[in-house]
Amino acid sequence: MSILLVAQRRDMKPFRDAILNVDPNIDIEIWPNSTNPGRVQFAVAWHHPQQIWKSYPNLKVISSLGAGVDHLLKDSSIPEHVQLTRVVVPSLADQMSDYVLTAVLNIIRNSEIYRDQQQESIWKNQPAHLKDELTVGVMGMGELGSTTAKRLYSNGFTVNGWAQSRKELDGISTFTAGNLGEFLNQSNILVNLLPLTPQTEGILDLDLFKELKKPAFIINVARGKHLIEEDLVYALDKELITHAVLDVFSTEPLPESHPFWGRKKITITPHIASVTDPDEVAVLLVENYKRALSGMELLNEVNRKRGY
Amino acid sequence: MSILLVAQRRDMKPFRDAILNVDPNIDIEIWPNSTNPGRVQFAVAWHHPQQIWKSYPNLKVISSLGAGVDHLLKDSSIPEHVQLTRVVVPSLADQMSDYVLTAVLNIIRNSEIYRDQQQESIWKNQPAHLKDELTVGVMGMGELGSTTAKRLYSNGFTVNGWAQSRKELDGISTFTAGNLGEFLNQSNILVNLLPLTPQTEGILDLDLFKELKKPAFIINVARGKHLIEEDLVYALDKELITHAVLDVFSTEPLPESHPFWGRKKITITPHIASVTDPDEVAVLLVENYKRALSGMELLNEVNRKRGY
Repeated sequence: MSILLVAQRRDMKPFRDAILNVDPNIDIEIWPNSTNPGRVQFAVAWHHPQQIWKSYPNLKVISSLGAGVDHLLKDSSIPEHVQLTRVVVPSLADQMSDYVLTAVLNIIRNSEIYRDQQQESIWKNQPAHLKDELTVGVMGMGELGSTTAKRLYSNGFTVNGWAQSRKELDGISTFTAGNLGEFLNQSNILVNLLPLTPQTEGILDLDLFKELKKPAFIINVARGKHLIEEDLVYALDKELITHAVLDVFSTEPLPESHPFWGRKKITITPHIASVTDPDEVAVLLVENYKRALSGMELLNEVNRKRGY
Repeated sequence: MSILLVAQRRDMKPFRDAILNVDPNIDIEIWPNSTNPGRVQFAVAWHHPQQIWKSYPNLKVISSLGAGVDHLLKDSSIPEHVQLTRVVVPSLADQMSDYVLTAVLNIIRNSEIYRDQQQESIWKNQPAHLKDELTVGVMGMGELGSTTAKRLYSNGFTVNGWAQSRKELDGISTFTAGNLGEFLNQSNILVNLLPLTPQTEGILDLDLFKELKKPAFIINVARGKHLIEEDLVYALDKELITHAVLDVFSTEPLPESHPFWGRKKITITPHIASVTDPDEVAVLLVENYKRALSGMELLNEVNRKRGY
């Protein structure tokens, strides 16, 4: 039996080495160099090429290499009986909450404006936003969203949370699906940490921007396809949105000709908010591989209907 | 009896209004328009012109408008019998810890590098510094230093503290005056929150930079004169220091021709890390004014010999 590692635009060797560190007896193949596809029962995938699965007749489980599984769910060639799982490790949530906290602090402390001033040797005080003046609204209250909301709250921010089902978190006002408008009306800094599903695709659009409390800011750290990019440009031009911090984009890498690059009101990072650590992930992958072989219940199994 | 407000390059009217909000019966004069100097017993000063005090024969107390009192201590024309106090309000320490936390997070998450990349439309991952790889060293463990150290620790950072006298803070390793070298050898990101005294002036020099654990970073949020500016430029050029975040400068406003402006390895903000809120400060000023009139012990009195 063996594990198959499949990715495009990502070197999987560090993951192979990390898995072998956990258990040197595991057989691992890295796509496309699999010599014995019939032995593959467990695959680890990140932006895999579609339609490859028919070469692996004994595949039982595909694990995403991250918390997101939209890249798996959109591949209709994955047989129904194959179970899907994802990787939820503490450091992913910790990194994500660091990234969001950094972005929120830079917003309230006018970091981007001071940086622009520095380029022109301008010494000028810009009134900071007070913490109790701006409310942060976190969309998506899974592992990443909850951890991020708690981090913001413990740093003195007023935080709203929005999720499909009701969540109880100390100090955080939570809203459910039916109360999206109310949530938006009471949130200035919107942090998107939703899973990408047919229901959430394109959710960050002009209608949503209009509903946000002003001044309004967008932090998108989930998936590029949550955002209607033209709507953001329009909203920035119309000053409906003051600034946006984006780590994810509809097309990645963001094309050199993309209009986002040159905009001062957009901060761009290259999908680095939360980066999977091979050593940490390997422990979880090996655990789930052994569970799969022995027929035990998997950790972090994905509900295909729900979409995460 | 009356309060005198004295400042250069700062509008004191908001402070007068805030004091009158607390107690509308207090007489207040704003320098240089004092009509009855003989009635002034309490002065509030921020970068006052020296030698003005002889016009106020009945002055008993001078309060700094901030936490720093170096601008008062360097004025030898203040009579010995005049008591000095300073303003220590919770929001100053909270703002300061926000500023430092923002700077530290931006350092570990490579924010400046990503910003430079954005200007050239470059999509490139830069390995983030792990939190357990870089230790933050806070110099100065007064109100601002302790609050900042605690904020960093509660956000998952490893924190060292250095102070004249031993401080006990949960989770933070503290060093005293005699162990400066040891403190520096174990700190990567140096946060300066010392008071400015003859002993600490110029403390951030090449010798200190050499002692820091590498990679090394400097965050100066105390006073410009703590830093030997030429030494910092040399240390950045020699890569002894990777990046510096500076909120205070030897000359403020920082002159347009100053070499710091154009350096990518220096982040400049215009002395905004911690800004006094008139309403919050007024309560404390009025309290101390009334204590002064009735001969009670003052809050936050300054020990001139110690320098803070």
